[in-house]
Amino acid sequence: MAPDQEERYLALIEESMRAALHEQERATADLFAAGDLPLYQVLRYHLGWADTDFAPAECDPGKRTRPLVCLHAAAAVGGDVQQVAPIAAGIELLHNFTLIHDDIQDESASRRHRATVWAQWGAAQAINAGDAMFALGQLAVLAAAERGVPLERILRVQRGFNETTLRIVEGQVLDLGFECRWDLERDDYLRMIGGKTAAIVAFAAWAGACSSGASDEQSERFRAFGRALGLGFQVRDDLLGIWGSAALTGKPVADDIRRRKKSLPMLLLASEADQRDLAELRAIYTAPAVDAEGVRRVLALLARYEIEEQVQSEVDRLHQEAAVLLEAAAPPSPARAALSALLERLATRVG
Amino acid sequence: MAPDQEERYLALIEESMRAALHEQERATADLFAAGDLPLYQVLRYHLGWADTDFAPAECDPGKRTRPLVCLHAAAAVGGDVQQVAPIAAGIELLHNFTLIHDDIQDESASRRHRATVWAQWGAAQAINAGDAMFALGQLAVLAAAERGVPLERILRVQRGFNETTLRIVEGQVLDLGFECRWDLERDDYLRMIGGKTAAIVAFAAWAGACSSGASDEQSERFRAFGRALGLGFQVRDDLLGIWGSAALTGKPVADDIRRRKKSLPMLLLASEADQRDLAELRAIYTAPAVDAEGVRRVLALLARYEIEEQVQSEVDRLHQEAAVLLEAAAPPSPARAALSALLERLATRVG
Repeated sequence: MAPDQEERYLALIEESMRAALHEQERATADLFAAGDLPLYQVLRYHLGWADTDFAPAECDPGKRTRPLVCLHAAAAVGGDVQQVAPIAAGIELLHNFTLIHDDIQDESASRRHRATVWAQWGAAQAINAGDAMFALGQLAVLAAAERGVPLERILRVQRGFNETTLRIVEGQVLDLGFECRWDLERDDYLRMIGGKTAAIVAFAAWAGACSSGASDEQSERFRAFGRALGLGFQVRDDLLGIWGSAALTGKPVADDIRRRKKSLPMLLLASEADQRDLAELRAIYTAPAVDAEGVRRVLALLARYEIEEQVQSEVDRLHQEAAVLLEAAAPPSPARAALSALLERLATRVG
Repeated sequence: MAPDQEERYLALIEESMRAALHEQERATADLFAAGDLPLYQVLRYHLGWADTDFAPAECDPGKRTRPLVCLHAAAAVGGDVQQVAPIAAGIELLHNFTLIHDDIQDESASRRHRATVWAQWGAAQAINAGDAMFALGQLAVLAAAERGVPLERILRVQRGFNETTLRIVEGQVLDLGFECRWDLERDDYLRMIGGKTAAIVAFAAWAGACSSGASDEQSERFRAFGRALGLGFQVRDDLLGIWGSAALTGKPVADDIRRRKKSLPMLLLASEADQRDLAELRAIYTAPAVDAEGVRRVLALLARYEIEEQVQSEVDRLHQEAAVLLEAAAPPSPARAALSALLERLATRVG
């Protein structure tokens, strides 16, 4: 896809996101007085549009992967991206709602090189910010009615939007529960990331097709593609969570080790390590905190069993699977080529 | 209203709430394995349908005020309560989502005589439980389509549902910010409870009328009634939060003092107290914790300025206002009489 085409899509997404916020902020213009925390400014901060003093800013807004998948899927079935843009914006707001709450749950103090909402304004207000972002996502989707998407389709998308949210929350429930467990297998990992990460990418692809009038069958093909794309995205994320460059990911080095995440690398290591290495691993993770020396030792264990290489093969396998599913979802077109390019980019991304 | 009529409404609400949960639980029947936290069981616990071991239970489910207002409003404009029940259920789920998150934010360890979700399973999982409850509320509203409510009305209700959520969150943002402030006036209190409590009661009354096909004008009259009812409800709640019986409210005695809530009694006291009393009050609240002696002294100050009597007059005034607005909203009918009776009950409730 031509770069200016992608710029256009990003601008459409941004416009609908800003419209959703702006409408509600305007409706409550007199609500927040001096001394109050201005809720919508906090949301702007999280979205990269404001700094901590609420002055306008242009910070890294993230990759916008999910809404781009939605718009490309719409274009690939002959849909009108202008009509579908509010739905894509709603998906990005949904994603950002989950990020705000995840950061509280994981006690992550930074994201995209900036303080997270809870680190800046406390966990209680960050819960509020996430809740508000979620409601704004719903309103963005509903706004597609004003662009002519038939009500029946909007209702289906709205239903899928909330079912997807439940899948994400279910995955997050599992993820948090996994942190203190060593009895996990590959299947446990897959049911966790199937909800936590893949569900929303699958939904984005499905919603783009469905809201554009694609048949149920074709929409489901897009969902299958999105799911494989999402799984590959998460496995690549797991890889970056341990071996990624802090400068590029915006998170501390080896952050997933410090956070005791049962990501794929750790599961593979736990299943392949001999008894002595496993005992060392568990000892490191049983300590009150994983310190720098602990991180160094875990990295050495991961290297001994060549885990990074195994995880990268898994990324490649899922990437390949997604490519095949994409070809089955729609005939060749510039939009399908754009989805291919996006897939390529995600499989090899470094941040 | 005849007691068996109210029982029937409560059963309709309960049925739609259970259906929303059950559908999603069934869709993910294989997801949660032994050792995982079963998300939907946690939601059942909060709703009073299960105990902490997830065995079925029948605990105090709360008063179901909001969904009852919705169904009575529907009946008062000639609507079909069976059709509107999923919307009423969605409103009760929305309310319960806010309770789960509020309990985390307020560090409240008990509700309805039982441990709160965060006190039982930790704040991180309680954030998840609230998020899931919110998504289920949205799905409940959408289910009204299957009962024949026209799509156009469902979309309006869905929009109102999310705007109401934003009003609630805005009120909660203010409430949390008020805890450490002494520069507040009556207007600050009103803009806070206008969002935090009144918005959802106003929405419940509006949605019952609107989804039943009432005119915009009549629906707005119901909203105005619901708003006055909600404001009165909160002021009465403020009264119970200080002088209520722990056995009846399910919360510790003088809980709002301990929690440093800037409820109406405290605002009135702060505005009327002489300099010496005000200094004493601020000293008590500046200490790291409000202990039993602090609570005793605050109660003595409240008695000195006859704050309880003033707050009860405010309840009576709002109650009167709601009664007048109700008469303007609909002609006499058994449904309107039921709303009158509910208003009466709320104004004099003790728990």
